[in-house]
Parts: sequence; structure tokens; C-alpha cells
Amino acid sequence: MPIYQATASAPVNIACIKYWGKRDTKLILPTNSSLSVTLDQDHLRSTTTSRADPSFEKDRLWLNGVEEEIKDGGRLATCISEMKRMRREVERQDPSLPKLSSYGVHICSRNNFPTAAGLASSASGFAALVSSLAALYSLPASPSELSLIARQGSGSACRSLFGGFVAWEMGSKPDGSDSLAVEVAPREHWPDIHALICVVSDDKKGTSSTSGMQRTVETSTLLEHRIRHVVPARMKAISEAIRARDFDAFARITMQDSNQFHAVALDTDPPIFYMNDVSRAIIAIIVEYNRVSVANGGKLKAAYTFDAGPNAVIYAPKENLKEIIELIVHYFPQAEPFKDPFGLFGTVGVKDAIIDGFNAAVAKPFGVGAVKGLIHTRVGDGPRVLSEEEALLGANGLPK
Amino acid sequence: MPIYQATASAPVNIACIKYWGKRDTKLILPTNSSLSVTLDQDHLRSTTTSRADPSFEKDRLWLNGVEEEIKDGGRLATCISEMKRMRREVERQDPSLPKLSSYGVHICSRNNFPTAAGLASSASGFAALVSSLAALYSLPASPSELSLIARQGSGSACRSLFGGFVAWEMGSKPDGSDSLAVEVAPREHWPDIHALICVVSDDKKGTSSTSGMQRTVETSTLLEHRIRHVVPARMKAISEAIRARDFDAFARITMQDSNQFHAVALDTDPPIFYMNDVSRAIIAIIVEYNRVSVANGGKLKAAYTFDAGPNAVIYAPKENLKEIIELIVHYFPQAEPFKDPFGLFGTVGVKDAIIDGFNAAVAKPFGVGAVKGLIHTRVGDGPRVLSEEEALLGANGLPK
Repeated sequence: MPIYQATASAPVNIACIKYWGKRDTKLILPTNSSLSVTLDQDHLRSTTTSRADPSFEKDRLWLNGVEEEIKDGGRLATCISEMKRMRREVERQDPSLPKLSSYGVHICSRNNFPTAAGLASSASGFAALVSSLAALYSLPASPSELSLIARQGSGSACRSLFGGFVAWEMGSKPDGSDSLAVEVAPREHWPDIHALICVVSDDKKGTSSTSGMQRTVETSTLLEHRIRHVVPARMKAISEAIRARDFDAFARITMQDSNQFHAVALDTDPPIFYMNDVSRAIIAIIVEYNRVSVANGGKLKAAYTFDAGPNAVIYAPKENLKEIIELIVHYFPQAEPFKDPFGLFGTVGVKDAIIDGFNAAVAKPFGVGAVKGLIHTRVGDGPRVLSEEEALLGANGLPK
Repeated sequence: MPIYQATASAPVNIACIKYWGKRDTKLILPTNSSLSVTLDQDHLRSTTTSRADPSFEKDRLWLNGVEEEIKDGGRLATCISEMKRMRREVERQDPSLPKLSSYGVHICSRNNFPTAAGLASSASGFAALVSSLAALYSLPASPSELSLIARQGSGSACRSLFGGFVAWEMGSKPDGSDSLAVEVAPREHWPDIHALICVVSDDKKGTSSTSGMQRTVETSTLLEHRIRHVVPARMKAISEAIRARDFDAFARITMQDSNQFHAVALDTDPPIFYMNDVSRAIIAIIVEYNRVSVANGGKLKAAYTFDAGPNAVIYAPKENLKEIIELIVHYFPQAEPFKDPFGLFGTVGVKDAIIDGFNAAVAKPFGVGAVKGLIHTRVGDGPRVLSEEEALLGANGLPK
């Protein structure tokens, strides 16, 4: 009896033009298009192994070692059944193929970053799920086609089906068949884009993005203007900036759109806050860092962006990362030595930066732990199909 | 030689529909109408004495004991010269009157609240200045006419020319002659509206409202929608709520508009933050307090609002103030005993409140000093002309 099994990994993505609001909550159709940078799987990834076997009595899924219930009609069940439907079509066209679509599947998924990091793992998770099932089922589907299914697991997951710079076109059809991800540019087009993730400690239990965005849709009197008039122009402008590798324009739009996403969250009733005083201080530092550059005749050197939580992601050309890390570590001392995947600091570690003309008073230094971790990564590639050695399921079809 | 001198006091006002953005920075013409509650001068006021004397070589002004320069073409000079112009017209019509308009004036002004409290003193200050000069010059001007001049000192000062509930109609004329304050309802219409001012400690030097609002005008892509579509509807709705003494509607609109003002500040490039983690916690507490009431079939019991700083003002019917103060003191312990001007707590002082169903986890208790002061006041009357005993200038025409 052959073993039908495949393993894939998929990346995290962080949006520059933010997704906030659904026009269809079941199909997960957004109220506006969005655009993201895919981060490097060498640093952050979800890995998923799927196996189909006629002996499996039902579909089962383990996430980070814990079995999760696959609820009927839930997002997981929807994605799995959509993938089986595509497999069925393949089997119909070539009756010689094994009827994997009729077998139960076991799915085992792991993130290589702690959930406590506050990074949305649903995007990489659903992208890895869909990618591993596509490999298992030998589907002839393009990443855009797979993105339609990942989208129904978690909206922003659709953008993790591509590497590089990715747009989620909102589409207009009621069935969602045109609400999918497309590549704006591959990582090779602009590999110089690096990212520093600042994991911010927060006492407050935030509003989930699923419920928060619908409250904004229902109560904000500014959201519709954003959706209709602001986002379409920004999607066009940032796509052009990416094609032209114009970091100044890319950074400006990215920061403006992060601000506006949090503005419409605040315009919600009751208001939603995701950023805290640490987030505000990171913004003040990046604003000042850019101000000094512009005052000296230069351009923007870094862009902050914040998702539905207090964590900052700072995008910048690689050459600026050393300065940025020094600045952040100055204001937010770290308990652990900085993990330096690109070898910026040699053996001496991070020292205090002195940047000519930088007004240190824009923020006050915080205590150890206010920023509880720093992750330096960069733009990355799309989902990868991995070898058998990297499978997460053992010979018995259960997690290793 | 007679002494020509008058003393007046004027109140602080706190807006429910926020003023943010000028269409003319010199005349101080706003991009939208606004509406405020005038607070009781028994608790918070500016007092100003003005004297005109032919022996005064120039106009001079003392603020809280320190002489301030009256800059040519500045806001102070504009207000003084406008008042002299009105006096000149009176003198022209009745040539028997002394020619006070040709005399120098000495002006002495004091606030009875510390500048450190972070309360905008320019509104009460310019209203008191204009009121004392109007009394000195025996001008037959209505409060709305005086508001035209106070507006040129500090926009929101125009609203302090009335007690009760006051609209600043934005007007449309380029010369600003229709951009003035009108009474929506006097204090006697709804004296039950009380206010708790929470003076919040802040490390961060905030953006001044003068520069901040113009940055919003220049860079926010949401402000115009607010100005054109949101504020006009809210002005109408909150005026109706005030006339109907409908606290539920009043509170809802007040909180929504505070949120939206801070949303457009955040939508500014670079973004402007006035609220901090303490402000956020106060919002969470009031939201929860209202949630419990509504869950029990009741109505909104309190409304927060935040100006261009971290301080909260909580409006509520008098009967709710005891609970609100207990809640705030629970989360924000006070260094000093609560000054209890309305005798809510008798001799025992503020104790911990237990409110059935209130989810205490919506905020974590802060340390002493996070809210560094609490001021309990209520809706109040308009400027008062005071007796000679309360004059701030001595017989020699200098501050006492």
C-alpha cells in the first residue's frame, strides 16, 4: 500500500495596505483590496504535512502538537472540503488516479515561532495547509487558484500563497471567485527589503480582528470613505512604488495606511485600540529617524506598520537595519542578546547608535521587556514543498 | 481723575463635537462647526481685570503674575485692537463719552487652576479678556458678537462666551463675520450634567493643537469626509439630544466624536497621538460601565471625551458621579484625598465600588499618579462681571 503524503511550508505576510472589513463574512470577501510583503520562511514559517489514507476514519488535524476539532461548516472544514473537491475533479478527468478525495486526511501543522510572539499564524498556517493538500492531491492549481481556498480559512492567508510583494484583489463577484491573491513582484525583484519585527508586551487583551473589523464596518463613519476613495489610489501607488523599487514612496504609503487602519479602528463604537504606549514610542523613533534623513536631503529610511496588535514591523532597505536595530535596542533594552541572522554586528553585539541630529527626546527609554523580542528577517519566497525527511507525521499517520 | 477699570471671569468649555482644522489660520475660521459644554466657574475660571488710563504708555498684559509680550499682529494684539475699535464706534456715536479707545490698557489675568493640569486655559483666558474689556468699554455687544473677537484669540474661546451648551457655527463668509458662538441651551435647561476631569500624567510632549490641526488638514485623507458629512449630522443630532435632555444620545455622540477626532489625528502624517495607555484604560472603564447598564436594560450612564492631550473629561448625570468617581479611584489611586465639592462621600471619603456584573479585567489598576488629579464640576454659566473687590490690578495699575 503506497503512502500518500506531502509536506509544505508557507510564509508569514505583513500588509502594507491593510485588510479591515468583510463584505461577506462566510466567504471572507473583503471590503477593500490589500497588499503585503511575504517574509522569509528561513526565519518564520508554518509547516504542514497532510496524509490521505483509506484507513483514516475521519479528517483530523494537529496544530503545534495539539489536536484541534474540525468543526462542520467551520473554516478548516471548508478548506479541506474545497481541496477534496478539486482533487475529485482531477480524479474524474483521469480515472486511473487513486481516489484520495474519498480518503480521510491527517494534517499536522507547526509554526516555528511561538504563538506568544503575537504574530498572526493563521495566514501562514492556512497557506501551508492548502499547499500541503495541493501537493498531496497533485493539483494543477496556480497559487492564485489556491489563494481562493486559503482565503476562506483566513482572509490574509491568501496573500501567503506568493512570495515577494502580493496584492489581494478584493474582487466584485458575490461567489468570491475573483477575490484572490496576485503577485505584484517576486522577491528577486527587490530582495533588499528587510524587516525588523518588534514583539511588544501588552497587558491588555485585544479585540480579535474578526470581531473588530465587523464592528468597524457597522459603526465607523469613516471606513466607507477609506474603502471607496483612499485604498484604490494607494493600491495603485504602492504597486508602482514596488515596481520602481522606490522605497521612499513605499514607506510613506505603508506608514499612512497603518495609521489609517488604526484610525478607523479608533473610529469604531466602542473604539478599538491595538497600539499602546510602546507602539507609539516606536512610531516616534521611526518618524524622527526619517526626519533626520529628510532634513539632510535624503529620503525615508524606514517604514513602520502595525497589525491588529501592538507589535511593530519595520520595513527598510538592508543597509539601514543596523542603525534601526541599534536605535530600537537603545530605547527598548533586550533581555536576550540580539539574534543576528545576517551577521550585522559581528561578535561585539548591538551597541548604542549615535545618529547625528537625532532628537533623543522623542521617546523615553523603556525598561527591559517592553519590547520582549526582535526578529530580523526580509522579503521571502512563496510556499515550498518539502522532502519526506521533513514530514511531521510518523509512519503510523500520527504526529511524530 | 476717574478710574476706568473692569473685572470679569470666564469659564472653561470642553467640546462634545470637536473643533479640528482651520480654513483660515489668521482669522481662526474652522473647517467644521463644534459644540461644547461650559463648565462651572465656581470650580474652573480665568479672571481678568482691564484698566484704561491716559497715563499708560502702551498696552501691557500679565498672565498668572508674569508679563507677556503683546506681539504686533499677534492674537492678543488682534483681540485688544478689535475691542478698541468697537469702543471707538461707541465713542463716535456718543461724543460725550471718555475716549478710552485712545488710552493704553493694562490687563491682568489669572487662572484658578494650574497650567500643569493640562486644561486648555486659552479658551477661558481669551473669553475673560474680551469680557473684561467689553465691561471696561461699556460695549453694547451681545455674547455672540464678543465671540467673534474671542475666536481670533483662540478658536475655542468663542464658546466660553456662553454658559450651558454652546455651538460654534463655522460660518461661510471669508471675513469670518458669521463664525460665532450661539447658545444651544442655557445651563438651567439641563443643570444635571456633571463632569469629572481626570488629569492624566504624560511623559510625552504632545503636538500643539495649532500645528497639529493644520497637519491634519494638509495630510489626512479622512478629514474632509468628517467635515462634510459626519459633523453636520452630529451637530444636528446632539443639539436635539440637548434640547430633549436625552443623555443616552448625548453620550453616544460625544464619545463617537471624541474617537473620530483622535482618529483623524492618527490619520495625519506623521501621526498625532494625544491619548496614552491611561486614557485608553479610562475609555475601557467607561465602555464597560455603560455596557453593564445597557445589558441590564438601562441606558448609557457616562460619556468620555478627550481634547488634544491625555486628560479625560467624563460627562454624566449627577446621580452617576459617585459610582464613576469610585470606579476611577479604584483603577487610579489618588495621592490626595478627593476634593468633594458636591459632598457625595460625606466624611468617609471614596471607597471601592462594587458594580454588579462589571468586568474588572477591562483595565488593570495603575499606580498612584497615573491620574494625578480629579476635578468634579458641572455645567456652568457664562462670563461674569465681578465687583471692584475682585480686581487683580492695584491702585497703581499694576498687578496686586
